[in-house]
Amino acid sequence: MNAEIITIGDELLIGQVIDTNSAWIAEQLNLCGIKVVQITSIPDNHLRIITTLTEASTRADLILMTGGLGPTRDDITKTSLCEYFGTKLVFNQEAFENIERIFRIRSYNITPLNRAQAEIPESCTPLLNINGTAPGMWFEKDNKIYISMPGVPFEMKALMTDQIIPRLQNLSHISIVHKTILTHGVGESFLAAKIEEWETSLPDFIKLAYLPQPGIVRLRLTATGNDRELLEETIDDRTKELYNLVPDLIFGEGEDTLELVTGSLLKKHGFTLATAESCTGGYIAHLITGIAGSSAYFKGSVVAYSNEIKENVLGVSPATIAKSGAVSEETVFEMAAGLIKQFNVNCAIAVSGIAGPDGGTEDKPVGTTWICVLSPKGAITRKFTFGEHRGRNIRRAALAALDLLRKQLK
Amino acid sequence: MNAEIITIGDELLIGQVIDTNSAWIAEQLNLCGIKVVQITSIPDNHLRIITTLTEASTRADLILMTGGLGPTRDDITKTSLCEYFGTKLVFNQEAFENIERIFRIRSYNITPLNRAQAEIPESCTPLLNINGTAPGMWFEKDNKIYISMPGVPFEMKALMTDQIIPRLQNLSHISIVHKTILTHGVGESFLAAKIEEWETSLPDFIKLAYLPQPGIVRLRLTATGNDRELLEETIDDRTKELYNLVPDLIFGEGEDTLELVTGSLLKKHGFTLATAESCTGGYIAHLITGIAGSSAYFKGSVVAYSNEIKENVLGVSPATIAKSGAVSEETVFEMAAGLIKQFNVNCAIAVSGIAGPDGGTEDKPVGTTWICVLSPKGAITRKFTFGEHRGRNIRRAALAALDLLRKQLK
Repeated sequence: MNAEIITIGDELLIGQVIDTNSAWIAEQLNLCGIKVVQITSIPDNHLRIITTLTEASTRADLILMTGGLGPTRDDITKTSLCEYFGTKLVFNQEAFENIERIFRIRSYNITPLNRAQAEIPESCTPLLNINGTAPGMWFEKDNKIYISMPGVPFEMKALMTDQIIPRLQNLSHISIVHKTILTHGVGESFLAAKIEEWETSLPDFIKLAYLPQPGIVRLRLTATGNDRELLEETIDDRTKELYNLVPDLIFGEGEDTLELVTGSLLKKHGFTLATAESCTGGYIAHLITGIAGSSAYFKGSVVAYSNEIKENVLGVSPATIAKSGAVSEETVFEMAAGLIKQFNVNCAIAVSGIAGPDGGTEDKPVGTTWICVLSPKGAITRKFTFGEHRGRNIRRAALAALDLLRKQLK
Repeated sequence: MNAEIITIGDELLIGQVIDTNSAWIAEQLNLCGIKVVQITSIPDNHLRIITTLTEASTRADLILMTGGLGPTRDDITKTSLCEYFGTKLVFNQEAFENIERIFRIRSYNITPLNRAQAEIPESCTPLLNINGTAPGMWFEKDNKIYISMPGVPFEMKALMTDQIIPRLQNLSHISIVHKTILTHGVGESFLAAKIEEWETSLPDFIKLAYLPQPGIVRLRLTATGNDRELLEETIDDRTKELYNLVPDLIFGEGEDTLELVTGSLLKKHGFTLATAESCTGGYIAHLITGIAGSSAYFKGSVVAYSNEIKENVLGVSPATIAKSGAVSEETVFEMAAGLIKQFNVNCAIAVSGIAGPDGGTEDKPVGTTWICVLSPKGAITRKFTFGEHRGRNIRRAALAALDLLRKQLK
């Protein structure tokens, strides 16, 4: 099955909005075994919508559109679809009740413009959009499927996930099962070498994709076949093998983050944490406090950007800094130990490094970072050598610190 | 002049990469008065490249392509262009010397694949790409212009800015001058009301665009005409008027950020800063330390996520918290005052608020935030009421705090 994606909206063609919908839809279709042959962005223009649909139908069996379904005058996708499919707008009670429900939540009054959003082309199957007032629409014509969705990303994503993808899978009688496993600590090629044998032994119906980010490599397993139960079972078995193979590298699955997983472990143990940050400048605290409810285990942080603060607030000995330097095993250990005392916590993370671009020496080049982690489960200090990019060094140091604590607590 | 953008690459159609090039190019063209009528993404496929070019030439006078110029076998844009324009590849000495120069910097050896990147279609005007090994190419055929660029964003952007846009402006004999003014503190509609008279008085050749982000509204002025000097002069004069009209709201221009501008003011005065952060959880310190060289004026931060830390580390009186609460004018003042003493700085920012989603009360709903700023130039405490979204509350509180300090120091 070939698919084409059409995104409709003047805002795309003046560069005001980046079209992120297309890449997301393309990825989802690809995971279903559907090949995307073209992505086209066009303005809110009646003639252009009809011409583009006509052209797309010569290349693809499945055409997905987003945009142009809002309540204002420039949103003309619905009337263009009526002309293309030779149908007319009719009032849809279920769509209207959905609009009423949403307006009740927001305490707004329904205007005639909003009521008009419940009018949909007679020949389509409406797709209920629980997150917004514009329903999705499913058309069939000359053995081809046309789907129209709102352009608001979270409304489109929910329609795709909950309604469109299951219908497409039903049509093809093919089941697809995904699992994403998250690793931290080694680069893509190193990880690939470590799991090479396991990867080679995967059956043909399971595909593996490496999705790298700074510090993190996501492994996405995709199983395709007719027997959903068999697919799920095989993916589960193979995931267990992977956990046994690289137990320390895997920190979570799906939408997990290191701050979320480490936070859950702290909560489970009833431990409390504080951080002493030099080069990460508060970024670890920022990641942790980005999670709602983190005050249950996180007490606070000292960003010690000067040696004076390391000494006066954290109690690092001036002699230690004079002897070993601010970026050293001794200093991060004293920072963490001082924190445990000062903040009355039982877990501490301390980081000191050279984020760059300046401050590097031959001995300690930019990217050199010392991390100390103390908890009732252990104590560790470790040296890392990251790269030259300030922002990425800060990010990688924060992830490395959270992962050291995670490994102690798990 | 109508333009069309074609982005070429298999990675776009499997959703591995979001096409950010198109929006950027569209914005640049739009600012030059060139209208983009379609954006099309297609795979690295010979026939599809030729068909798409043919179709685009029926709609547009200017066709810009990115992608498919790399050294590997899947990069076939150049040979497709040769067929489309009826020309052949020839070796280009200047392009080769550029490749040699880049390889010298990276200390790599040139392979035959890299040498082939210096071969370009005979009928095109090559555009030197100082950031990469694939030159840009400018073709003309039947009164239409075709431009091919590498897909790597920073290479494409430099080619556009340095070579393509000046050429396009030359062709049209039109000069375009932009200036972006950055404001913080009021929403888009409120700002529009404040500057309505000024906006109405702008001459026809100056267009104003409002570009809002959480907490910040960017105002982009675009002047279009034949006399570049007059355009620049008028933009400068009108900008001065704007500064006089809303002096407190404007914090910078172009690529400035609040942390950069506030940091520069601290440096200029020779002042030092520390932050005491409750709800912002280290985010202000993270923004400040994201700037290289910030250690010259930033000494550190206490993230006081529990009352205990506010009392023990910052010296807030338990009686104050008991009487007024952790989110109160009295508490943020004592946090800031404690910081000045503890951290031996002369400027302090203290923030305490309810980021959400939990923790709100009828008196102090989610979003309630108190900020105190102390410096040798003044002292201020202010209450803000942001929204319901945790991440946005943290961001808006941080920007508001930095802006309060900026106003004291300027």
